[in-house]
Amino acid sequence: MIGTSFMGRAHSQAWRTAPRFFELPMRPVMAVVAGTDPTRTSAAAATLGWEESAIGWQDVIGRDDIDLVDICTPGNSHAEIAIAALDHGKHVLCEKPMANSVAEAEAMAAAARKAAANGVFAQVGFTYRRVPAVQLARQLVAEGRIGRIRTIRCAYQQDWLADPASPMSWRLEKDKAGSGALGDIGAHAVDLAQFVTGEALAGVAGLMETFVDERPLPASLSALGGVAGEGTGKVTVDDAVVFLSRTVTGALATFEATRFAWGRKNALRMEVYGEKGSLTFDFEDMNVLNFFDAADPARTAGFRRIVVTEPDHPFIAAWWPAGHGLGYEHAFTHQVVDLVGDLAAQRQPTPSFDDGLAVQRVLDAVERSSAAGGAWIDLPTTSTTH
Amino acid sequence: MIGTSFMGRAHSQAWRTAPRFFELPMRPVMAVVAGTDPTRTSAAAATLGWEESAIGWQDVIGRDDIDLVDICTPGNSHAEIAIAALDHGKHVLCEKPMANSVAEAEAMAAAARKAAANGVFAQVGFTYRRVPAVQLARQLVAEGRIGRIRTIRCAYQQDWLADPASPMSWRLEKDKAGSGALGDIGAHAVDLAQFVTGEALAGVAGLMETFVDERPLPASLSALGGVAGEGTGKVTVDDAVVFLSRTVTGALATFEATRFAWGRKNALRMEVYGEKGSLTFDFEDMNVLNFFDAADPARTAGFRRIVVTEPDHPFIAAWWPAGHGLGYEHAFTHQVVDLVGDLAAQRQPTPSFDDGLAVQRVLDAVERSSAAGGAWIDLPTTSTTH
Amino acid sequence: MIGTSFMGRAHSQAWRTAPRFFELPMRPVMAVVAGTDPTRTSAAAATLGWEESAIGWQDVIGRDDIDLVDICTPGNSHAEIAIAALDHGKHVLCEKPMANSVAEAEAMAAAARKAAANGVFAQVGFTYRRVPAVQLARQLVAEGRIGRIRTIRCAYQQDWLADPASPMSWRLEKDKAGSGALGDIGAHAVDLAQFVTGEALAGVAGLMETFVDERPLPASLSALGGVAGEGTGKVTVDDAVVFLSRTVTGALATFEATRFAWGRKNALRMEVYGEKGSLTFDFEDMNVLNFFDAADPARTAGFRRIVVTEPDHPFIAAWWPAGHGLGYEHAFTHQVVDLVGDLAAQRQPTPSFDDGLAVQRVLDAVERSSAAGGAWIDLPTTSTTH
Amino acid sequence: MIGTSFMGRAHSQAWRTAPRFFELPMRPVMAVVAGTDPTRTSAAAATLGWEESAIGWQDVIGRDDIDLVDICTPGNSHAEIAIAALDHGKHVLCEKPMANSVAEAEAMAAAARKAAANGVFAQVGFTYRRVPAVQLARQLVAEGRIGRIRTIRCAYQQDWLADPASPMSWRLEKDKAGSGALGDIGAHAVDLAQFVTGEALAGVAGLMETFVDERPLPASLSALGGVAGEGTGKVTVDDAVVFLSRTVTGALATFEATRFAWGRKNALRMEVYGEKGSLTFDFEDMNVLNFFDAADPARTAGFRRIVVTEPDHPFIAAWWPAGHGLGYEHAFTHQVVDLVGDLAAQRQPTPSFDDGLAVQRVLDAVERSSAAGGAWIDLPTTSTTH
Repeated sequence: MIGTSFMGRAHSQAWRTAPRFFELPMRPVMAVVAGTDPTRTSAAAATLGWEESAIGWQDVIGRDDIDLVDICTPGNSHAEIAIAALDHGKHVLCEKPMANSVAEAEAMAAAARKAAANGVFAQVGFTYRRVPAVQLARQLVAEGRIGRIRTIRCAYQQDWLADPASPMSWRLEKDKAGSGALGDIGAHAVDLAQFVTGEALAGVAGLMETFVDERPLPASLSALGGVAGEGTGKVTVDDAVVFLSRTVTGALATFEATRFAWGRKNALRMEVYGEKGSLTFDFEDMNVLNFFDAADPARTAGFRRIVVTEPDHPFIAAWWPAGHGLGYEHAFTHQVVDLVGDLAAQRQPTPSFDDGLAVQRVLDAVERSSAAGGAWIDLPTTSTTH
Repeated sequence: MIGTSFMGRAHSQAWRTAPRFFELPMRPVMAVVAGTDPTRTSAAAATLGWEESAIGWQDVIGRDDIDLVDICTPGNSHAEIAIAALDHGKHVLCEKPMANSVAEAEAMAAAARKAAANGVFAQVGFTYRRVPAVQLARQLVAEGRIGRIRTIRCAYQQDWLADPASPMSWRLEKDKAGSGALGDIGAHAVDLAQFVTGEALAGVAGLMETFVDERPLPASLSALGGVAGEGTGKVTVDDAVVFLSRTVTGALATFEATRFAWGRKNALRMEVYGEKGSLTFDFEDMNVLNFFDAADPARTAGFRRIVVTEPDHPFIAAWWPAGHGLGYEHAFTHQVVDLVGDLAAQRQPTPSFDDGLAVQRVLDAVERSSAAGGAWIDLPTTSTTH
Repeated sequence: MIGTSFMGRAHSQAWRTAPRFFELPMRPVMAVVAGTDPTRTSAAAATLGWEESAIGWQDVIGRDDIDLVDICTPGNSHAEIAIAALDHGKHVLCEKPMANSVAEAEAMAAAARKAAANGVFAQVGFTYRRVPAVQLARQLVAEGRIGRIRTIRCAYQQDWLADPASPMSWRLEKDKAGSGALGDIGAHAVDLAQFVTGEALAGVAGLMETFVDERPLPASLSALGGVAGEGTGKVTVDDAVVFLSRTVTGALATFEATRFAWGRKNALRMEVYGEKGSLTFDFEDMNVLNFFDAADPARTAGFRRIVVTEPDHPFIAAWWPAGHGLGYEHAFTHQVVDLVGDLAAQRQPTPSFDDGLAVQRVLDAVERSSAAGGAWIDLPTTSTTH
Repeated sequence: MIGTSFMGRAHSQAWRTAPRFFELPMRPVMAVVAGTDPTRTSAAAATLGWEESAIGWQDVIGRDDIDLVDICTPGNSHAEIAIAALDHGKHVLCEKPMANSVAEAEAMAAAARKAAANGVFAQVGFTYRRVPAVQLARQLVAEGRIGRIRTIRCAYQQDWLADPASPMSWRLEKDKAGSGALGDIGAHAVDLAQFVTGEALAGVAGLMETFVDERPLPASLSALGGVAGEGTGKVTVDDAVVFLSRTVTGALATFEATRFAWGRKNALRMEVYGEKGSLTFDFEDMNVLNFFDAADPARTAGFRRIVVTEPDHPFIAAWWPAGHGLGYEHAFTHQVVDLVGDLAAQRQPTPSFDDGLAVQRVLDAVERSSAAGGAWIDLPTTSTTH
């Protein structure tokens, strides 16, 4: 694993936990974690459960005892690490956003396609796909329970930047983060919409805005870099973005991503309306999927609040009895379960780097639209793998 | 009153009820209702409480004993009736959408401005403004409790057309209704957003879609016309529309209006996020406003579910004790209360025809944007009167 | 109508409105309202829409032009007025609680039975029965959709007395109000549970408590009496009550009634769990019934949030399109609709005085249980008429 | 650890996870797990992360390398194991219900008091206390934000037995489980109410019911015993229970515990109303606490939906950013964190065996009340340690 911060902690918990609850066809060995600061990385290895620590990813990814590289660094390093790892014949799990530009993502997807021909696979970490309620949503759409999609309403809202006194971080610097709310959380919303509906977006028109363009510098450098010191730093990414879209089948969609929505803590929300029914999901109530079935007689029809914790719900049989809800990190465990299963079966895991590239193209189109004052931008027709 | 259908019934209930619960400076006399079919109109007069009935609006609006004309007909007749009434020196209350085109709306607004100079006033019926929770939302914004607006998320969702077997009606014919979801319900969403935030929209990009373009004809003509008979009729309006916008102060907004959202019955929903707090409203829970106050300490902060039925909430003191919620038609009663109060005080009621024109311009820009494939359309800078 | 306060206003609105929205077999004439204070009663007649006013009910109830007496006074006068009216051959609609004691209620029920033999009928005003969502709940139980009832969880919570500075009123004096939360709102909870489940309570054990036993006197007398002046008055009724019960078929139940539940404004809440499904209702969301159907496959089962505003829901066809919710006073209008229909058909309206007596017996048993320190009190086996 | 089933899995996850996210003053070593079946226990040791497995608890609890015994067996073995462990000078964590009878619980509490004098401590596993939202509720009450408690409304509702075809298990046999819904989940409700309010119950009146008294036998024995085979077995415990109570300070309370509430999966719900505010919690939305603060002006007051995932909320700083909710098993991790902290500080952990005994007395009184037809039973005055 490369990286030891927020995502490093979440991925480690998943690697540790998956074999405790699921029967995996292969047993993961947490061989080595690579960081930048020796003390910090060594401590992280001990705390997070890795056998060794290392400084710098370059030496690690070629090691013979390594089968898979798990990339948990900021977006500006993803392309380099992922392509190198694939070149070394290592499977790759790469955190989102896959890259900071379409060019990088294209290079990564090309490398992944080439590696796949040799049985080496890459996956991008759109982890929210593995929330059981989201999996159930996807299943219901795939089974035709919703019918042809009419409208999609999607938002990812947080509020941790709403206070202008919140300090600078690498996530607010364009060269490190690529973009702001758009790439950090909007990417999840795009992937979620495309995954659940099974439909690619055909074009976008979007507006981005930076509400607070200067923030106090933090006292010290974080593990992931970013400026530090006295005074203020310049925010070079978007604080919020809205965009509309049409899918390849003609469904209409709106999207919003913001880190300024007071009271919304981690509100990844989606509503999907189709010809036979509707689905709504909000990550702040992550164990619940709401489903309106138009086949119910009007007199007793209503959104069904499905508590997605039954044994026949995705991933649940391995956990607890009904109603004993899961939390944020469980989706990472599910990601490991599926990834290990796919690798054991020599099967392409999803979302693939092509899926990641498709999301990157959407993000890029939104940025170009916004730069052009909200102009409509067509997206290339793609097929997604799900 | 001109027209006896859905809106005619709602307006009549308001005229009858307002003086029973509120002390009005003038007592409304429900003099005459005009319709098209003699039997039907006469029956409506008796049922709805009007002293007389008449056929055709032309004779009625000039009568000496008439002070105010209440227009409850389809949009394609609004301009003609309203302008004629104003020319006769009658106050006008005109249902929304104010008109079927910007040209009509401009003519109406011009007539209203001219009439106002003589103490004759016109109002457009964006009735949802008078839901107490919406009034409270406006007050909180006006008092600065939300601060500068960051993002607006607005939708008006219904499902009465989601079934393709639902029959044709005049609301699905462009020459009568002007547009579909856009003008019928999207107009409310636009007015609501502009009213609550106090900010005009500065431009839009939108997409409209007709999902079901042919529907069975109803067996018989409705009171409001529309084709009837055997076979099917052609739907010439939009079934759903999405658009994004930016307000004059730079807030970002998304809008959706649809009559295809299974499970949403009359879901006029708005979320407003500002620098100091947030507000959310859903008409399906119309007596509630959710308010997040960023001034609350994080440990005990959360969206407050305000049940807007306290004596110091707008309009409530005249009704029932706390928790004894109001219904849909109460907002019409409030509209009468405010209108009568304004007329007694010789004051311009709101929303004015200029406000209605501003909404019409937004609708028109959305249509033009959609026709141009989602292109951005700037709106003229306006000031609203609220 | 006797009485012009809160209930007088609600009943008047119902008498005025019912013929405007419903086709009634007989047209109600609002002949005369009787009060105690000449000026106030005369003003009430004008405001509420009654042809005449009178002082004292004694002269009014015998008038030849009166067919029905609607009793909206405090509970301590119900028995005398109702029995006198029935003796004069007048139909009676009597507000709840039907009486302040079982003895009074028994005398009323006896008078009603005698009158019914002559085609003169009495009804008690448990109005919440006529909320459409409650009617739907009753229908679903009656149709067997819930199956045999297992548990009932019922509460009626308000908070208007939670502030100890709230002044005295007749509702806090035992000789006028009979009891406090128990009779005022607990009575509704008991009737609701018995109505929806169709099952009588077989016994109770309860605890009552007065949290604030002295309150400031109001400056002036209210229309309904009660002490006034300087200083404080003694609260002689319960502030809150809890009780448990078993129905005649063995279902278990808990009840709570309180006017001290901060944040609950008019929260009449019920949950019913049966062998085939569950229902939940909260009057603060009065247009909604939640229904869990155990016949749904576990994978897509969940409480269905039914918005009870469809044309095939009880009473709705006469009102507005789906999603245009009703308010508190609509249930009073429905009560008039059913009552007029029953009288035209010479049919016993419900709830009858026998139903009211059954509720009174429950309230009495709770009081006796509380006085005996929470002892179990059996109730006589009764059959209810619904 | 003794026992390898549901609770064994949950406790193991907690022991494994606590040191990964929290800085503990001592590092737990997962030395040995004891079961009954060699193959099963050995597999459990490997899966759950224990160094060794053993058959039978007797040999294990005296081992020198053991400092703490974690008891995860059915209730009928708790007393024997816990007392023996304490006698051997081992700290004890014992799952709830602490025992199957008051006599057992008294013996356990006596043993714990004696051990505590020697610095050996016992804790009972009312794990829900360690849900962050519940901790916050307790803090708010302790800080006086709710004021004197008026009413408590508590229920623990599940539905896994609502289907009469669900098979027999040891949980339905009185000699193994002690009681049914009462001890299994009602115990949690009692502890929760007493913990959050800080008040002991002073008496109860209750009713218990068995709705389905015969169930199909499961095909094979479970790890925890219970009858198996063909045909049906007799249910000897309660399916549901309701009871009312008064706390030592005079607050009124209702309780319900049922495994027959269709649609409720693991709904541990509590409402607490006090003189200054209210709190509500539902485990099915476990990351949320609703708080009504009566100090808020009525115009903007409402239940605050606090998403209890902020860094200054209990236990949260060690986990994820705001809005990234926790799941069921996190409370077990928090239990380990607190227990290890207390033991390192040579401090009595809570809830103590005296707290467990207090709950057991309540359960026992409810059973006696029900047996006596719902009679009121006083409870001995106790002080709780929290």
